[in-house]
Amino acid sequence: MRVRHKPWAKGKLNRYSDIVIHSPKDYSGEWYDVFHREAPLNVEIGTGKGQFIVGMAKKHPDENFIGIELHESILVSALQKCLDAEAENVRLINADARGLTELFAEDEVDSIYLNFCDPWPKNRHEKRRLTYQTFLAQYEYVLKNQGIVYFKTDNRGLFEYSLESFSRYGFILQNISLDLHQSQFPDNVMTEYEEKFSAKGQRIYRCEAVCGY
Amino acid sequence: MRVRHKPWAKGKLNRYSDIVIHSPKDYSGEWYDVFHREAPLNVEIGTGKGQFIVGMAKKHPDENFIGIELHESILVSALQKCLDAEAENVRLINADARGLTELFAEDEVDSIYLNFCDPWPKNRHEKRRLTYQTFLAQYEYVLKNQGIVYFKTDNRGLFEYSLESFSRYGFILQNISLDLHQSQFPDNVMTEYEEKFSAKGQRIYRCEAVCGY
Repeated sequence: MRVRHKPWAKGKLNRYSDIVIHSPKDYSGEWYDVFHREAPLNVEIGTGKGQFIVGMAKKHPDENFIGIELHESILVSALQKCLDAEAENVRLINADARGLTELFAEDEVDSIYLNFCDPWPKNRHEKRRLTYQTFLAQYEYVLKNQGIVYFKTDNRGLFEYSLESFSRYGFILQNISLDLHQSQFPDNVMTEYEEKFSAKGQRIYRCEAVCGY
Repeated sequence: MRVRHKPWAKGKLNRYSDIVIHSPKDYSGEWYDVFHREAPLNVEIGTGKGQFIVGMAKKHPDENFIGIELHESILVSALQKCLDAEAENVRLINADARGLTELFAEDEVDSIYLNFCDPWPKNRHEKRRLTYQTFLAQYEYVLKNQGIVYFKTDNRGLFEYSLESFSRYGFILQNISLDLHQSQFPDNVMTEYEEKFSAKGQRIYRCEAVCGY
């Protein structure tokens, strides 16, 4: 995603410290406390402008949602969506996905969502893909047994790579769709990017990778 | 494939008993003897009119190939292709894939090829799909450790199903292509069906499923 710098973003993120959690490592293993309840914990990595996570949160009011986003200038849009939607079951973290195991304890997370992450098509950038084995190792660590990584992309090469990577690592693949918007997934919540690309007739690929069989 | 009955097929298959093996179960565990040499053994299930297996045999003269086909009237075309190509490293079997473990011994086979098999799209016909778990169990039995199932289809639903089925059974997926003729697989040998469908611009899906990790 192209990032336009917003100098005021940091200030706004700081003002809403009930939604944007500023020392997230402090809550590792105790995220239920931040939400004031025990409920399934779902994490989106690269939450972007927040349409997906806020949509999911409204659809599943009995679950807790955390969106992680590296760029302040983008996360501030997700914050605004939370405010507009009055979604009380969403928290946001301004962090890098590489630190996931510092943010969550072992077996703390029920689901991880990866939506339209950067494909990093060059071979020499393989390690940056969010489905590279070092990331999968982190997902396995924080996910409960039978926890699920939900993965969507419009990039064919990244999807081919990711299926192989999940498979090699020992995740079990299920509910694969090679053309999501021609398939029967009635509960699909779209991201901003997905809306734009599928409107152009571009294929969306989707799969679920189950951890710990 | 639509099957036109050829009353003369049986007679012709019988006449070439050096190519079309008539009591194949007798050779289980000893197929090298039929080929008069030890060499990697590759089996195509549903070999159809034989373009693929004969093409592979000519391309890999140092390996042994067996094509299995249920319909005599189709197998007779594969026989003719063997004769025309003078492919000495191909044998044909007129049999049902369900009997695979009677045809081959444990760990006897190096590779299995499944090309454009019947998708059986109705849920109640799932058990007939060549990537249903009972078939995968047979492939696992006859394949060597690290043996590979090579799978190609133009049917999106069957491919989605098959990736999941391989994954659930414990095969490891590799070299997935979601649009084979737009990908870098320079060694692809096409079947008759594949030539026709990819000429129409239809996507061909391909994967390899590795046994016994």
